[in-house]
Amino acid sequence: MPDLYDVAAIGNAIVDVIAPATDAFLAQNNLDKGAMMLVDPARSAELYSRMAAAVEASGGSAANTIAGLASFGGRGAFMGKVADDKLGQVFAHDMRAIGARFENAPLIGGPATAVSMINVTPDGQRTMCTYLGASVEFTDSDVDPAVVEAAGIVYLEGYLFDAEAARRAFAKAAALAHGSGRMIALTLSDGFVVERHREGLMGFIESQVDLLFANDTEIRALFQTDDFDAALDALQYRVKLAAVTRGPQGSVILSQGERVHVAPEQVDKVVDTTGAGDQYAAGFMYGLSKGRSLQVCGQLGSLAAAEVISHYGPRPQVSLKDLAATRNL
Amino acid sequence: MPDLYDVAAIGNAIVDVIAPATDAFLAQNNLDKGAMMLVDPARSAELYSRMAAAVEASGGSAANTIAGLASFGGRGAFMGKVADDKLGQVFAHDMRAIGARFENAPLIGGPATAVSMINVTPDGQRTMCTYLGASVEFTDSDVDPAVVEAAGIVYLEGYLFDAEAARRAFAKAAALAHGSGRMIALTLSDGFVVERHREGLMGFIESQVDLLFANDTEIRALFQTDDFDAALDALQYRVKLAAVTRGPQGSVILSQGERVHVAPEQVDKVVDTTGAGDQYAAGFMYGLSKGRSLQVCGQLGSLAAAEVISHYGPRPQVSLKDLAATRNL
Repeated sequence: MPDLYDVAAIGNAIVDVIAPATDAFLAQNNLDKGAMMLVDPARSAELYSRMAAAVEASGGSAANTIAGLASFGGRGAFMGKVADDKLGQVFAHDMRAIGARFENAPLIGGPATAVSMINVTPDGQRTMCTYLGASVEFTDSDVDPAVVEAAGIVYLEGYLFDAEAARRAFAKAAALAHGSGRMIALTLSDGFVVERHREGLMGFIESQVDLLFANDTEIRALFQTDDFDAALDALQYRVKLAAVTRGPQGSVILSQGERVHVAPEQVDKVVDTTGAGDQYAAGFMYGLSKGRSLQVCGQLGSLAAAEVISHYGPRPQVSLKDLAATRNL
Repeated sequence: MPDLYDVAAIGNAIVDVIAPATDAFLAQNNLDKGAMMLVDPARSAELYSRMAAAVEASGGSAANTIAGLASFGGRGAFMGKVADDKLGQVFAHDMRAIGARFENAPLIGGPATAVSMINVTPDGQRTMCTYLGASVEFTDSDVDPAVVEAAGIVYLEGYLFDAEAARRAFAKAAALAHGSGRMIALTLSDGFVVERHREGLMGFIESQVDLLFANDTEIRALFQTDDFDAALDALQYRVKLAAVTRGPQGSVILSQGERVHVAPEQVDKVVDTTGAGDQYAAGFMYGLSKGRSLQVCGQLGSLAAAEVISHYGPRPQVSLKDLAATRNL
């Protein structure tokens, strides 16, 4: 079957609520800077009442990646669960408006559409408190075989390891993808996710994952070491292909014993790091789907990440296709 | 009674849905560039389905002005009507998060919270389609005498002239304000509002308004002339104080026969003109409440307008108080 989609992603369908915050605010509210914490409805309401005036924008890690892919001109599909409410409509609208497929029926009569309260400190770091709501009602029955089998890469969001039903969905997607010769990609998402699910993630990586995305914190958490190089060595032969981002130090790509170092894109002013890793994955997978070299795949990732951290909000505000063209990428 | 608030505003309580658009998109959807059009729920849904991926942010003209006033360090109150829904909660949250008073109970069992779909073209102009929803259920019973009588300036949004009940609310607010020695300010809001309600507006201005805000299009519409200077002459003796904005040409302040010309602030790149007039009014009224000269009031207005048009979204993204300090204003 020809590829209808360059990438089909499964992830949490989330609307972001983004506001500036001070370090003191994080401390007063017991928020770990840079992390993603899950909150229940009561804590969510309490935090929201204390949060500064905000803007709302469709988010969700893998959904942001699909938005980036579409901005490069790639063909994306997204699978995830929203509720039958206003924010669910916003999420679905934004996904379709960028030209991506999103056809999962909204959840009716259950929890509300997921929201992530993102407090952005003056250094551009984002600290997230997420109420998962309807998004954790995603199950294996929401995985559309026709979409998975028609996608060059099936991209899975590590955050979903928190939900038992979503893990079954991942297993189904992996079986379908490999059965039809497709590639499975996974992002580790967050250091705390790795801490919570180290063994499950490791087993899934070794048995199912063809392409792993992680940042330095996440791979150090995965191998329980403070030594970045030791973590890279440990990862090297566990997965066919891996792209490990290091923030302002660029990224390292591991492939069959080869290591490709990719320089970072220069950014004049980091405004909000939300979505940096998501956009790196978008650029990387777009490049891979077009048969580009690993070096160029990494550069496309860096370019997309640099764009998104130069403004508030988790998705590109300019055409990444045009931006790549100006760099001859 | 001492002033508890520098400004108390009455306006439409609206959440903005902001997306980039092309001129071709405006033409295809019969949208008049730069205008605000009212739409019914069916047309609203149709336009939203065609609109690009968007971000949501609390808006509403007078509410934006209160947000700007708060950013300068001023004390603001807002009166308006939201529904008991998610976007209504967003609007109320954002108003309180900036430190402004907003205590009108949400409407239950009626239309949804108002939304304004704002299509921003590459030249930075915004074209708005507004579904007024719950916001037009604002009536004179929602005008809190304790707030009006404790505000130095009571600021009224011209858009509300479209709603009969809101006009009664304006009359009540004006009577209360003048009865306790307060000042009534009005913004004309939009050229089409002026076309629809020229006589009613003129009567209200001549009998009740102490301070008028308008742009060049609106005062030319008010006096049915293409000649800006003729419109200024006609306005001069109809109102005690008026501030007329001219976009990149700055503004003109009329006061008892005196004319003060205020230079515009330089802006490197105009991204989105949404909220320029609202922020001008914020800076001007903040200055007035602090007893500054008309020249400085105008400069504070220009400064706030320049900040808001340099990014997407209708409210300031930096502290206007700090910004004013850097200019010794």
